[in-house]
Amino acid sequence: MTGRVMIVGLGPGRAEWMTPEAGQAIGAATDVVGYGPYLDRLALRPDQRVHASDNRAELVRARLALKLATDGRTVAVVSGGDPGVFAMAAAVFEAVEEDPRWLGLDIAVSPGVTAMQAAAARLGAPLGHDFCAISLSDNLKPWEVVARRLKAAAEGDFVIALYNPASKARPDRIHDAFRLLRSMKDGSTPVAFARAVGRPDERLTLTTLGEADPAVADMATLVMIGSSETRYIAREGERPWMLTPRTYGAGR
Amino acid sequence: MTGRVMIVGLGPGRAEWMTPEAGQAIGAATDVVGYGPYLDRLALRPDQRVHASDNRAELVRARLALKLATDGRTVAVVSGGDPGVFAMAAAVFEAVEEDPRWLGLDIAVSPGVTAMQAAAARLGAPLGHDFCAISLSDNLKPWEVVARRLKAAAEGDFVIALYNPASKARPDRIHDAFRLLRSMKDGSTPVAFARAVGRPDERLTLTTLGEADPAVADMATLVMIGSSETRYIAREGERPWMLTPRTYGAGR
Repeated sequence: MTGRVMIVGLGPGRAEWMTPEAGQAIGAATDVVGYGPYLDRLALRPDQRVHASDNRAELVRARLALKLATDGRTVAVVSGGDPGVFAMAAAVFEAVEEDPRWLGLDIAVSPGVTAMQAAAARLGAPLGHDFCAISLSDNLKPWEVVARRLKAAAEGDFVIALYNPASKARPDRIHDAFRLLRSMKDGSTPVAFARAVGRPDERLTLTTLGEADPAVADMATLVMIGSSETRYIAREGERPWMLTPRTYGAGR
Repeated sequence: MTGRVMIVGLGPGRAEWMTPEAGQAIGAATDVVGYGPYLDRLALRPDQRVHASDNRAELVRARLALKLATDGRTVAVVSGGDPGVFAMAAAVFEAVEEDPRWLGLDIAVSPGVTAMQAAAARLGAPLGHDFCAISLSDNLKPWEVVARRLKAAAEGDFVIALYNPASKARPDRIHDAFRLLRSMKDGSTPVAFARAVGRPDERLTLTTLGEADPAVADMATLVMIGSSETRYIAREGERPWMLTPRTYGAGR
């Protein structure tokens, strides 16, 4: 008997944003592995074994899932958002070469809605044109790499989605990022801080690159920074829509 | 009585990848507006009015949806993938300022899994680190803008997801894009052509930047181009996994 690892995304928080495939994979699992708060969202059965862990221990979790599968278990590895985007899928495949038996396992990834998409949906259509996603969180990514990518993103005039903008270990990184982007992009560029979208404590802050306070961003915040084409559409009594038109130069 | 516009993503093809929210929005609609083949995927009721249109007519569809809502209808505008990513959400917000009544409408976007994520899930974890998404399709985006963004993406060493790589109007654009990327990136960079992922005619072609034949890409293909960190993990008797590790420099 051989086991199986299914790497599953729960989406950004609302049950209505989790795919049926994710629910099926969790239902079929004998073992569910993940960060505690994600597991707390799930209605698991008493016969399912739950392996909760700390958020930083991604490789530990990956190895546990692979080991359980070699023991014949059917394992669901649970991530928030999309497991393929700055999340558990990479950790599992980083670990998979450590044991020849792991390479032979049945492993599958189930995609999900990621924070950038939930934020975009609330804001209007900021990702209507070319964009990039940059994580500021990784302690093992030197600042030089982050700076190189922010510069390239500004030079390419991409819309930029910043993941993991703030952490206890790196509280200044978001400030450094804004300093760099302000030196390259217009101060009137629309910027939105989209916190915990889809959860009860959701909070949207719409501003501009020049006026933004980067300290608004915590680890639950997705920061959306416009291209030169992105603009706000004012509405009476409501927050504006944020739009990046599909055609370049359409707003001029 | 006021109407409503819900801009809904069906995901990349499999019903298991469509969110419950999308299904609920379509179920609640009096009118469903979209490109014919997307509408054909849905089990609509006889009392629901269906407005099918050509794929190129995005602004026409957007205006129709907004007009129906001002008539008090509850409208679902249907996109494949995520309506926020190179799709109908931008078209609706581009049109919304044309009539003052449209600006006052209740409009909402429901996010979905987009082609890049479905491709990533099948391939392993190519989007485990910073990435960008570039559409080659837009007839109104000059080649200079595409070239500038491809250059920036290469300079920033992003993983690159190319949407809409081929069209009848622009058959050479994907070849031009590969020529440019080959002049800047290593020929051994992993490249995957992920066609119609989640549909019966799904086809994956794994290769390298040096050896890739860009003509493999049609309009149903998502092209995934690695960063300098992206690598293949060989497996016996199976196609390799494609991985971009979470930490920069981890593979060296």
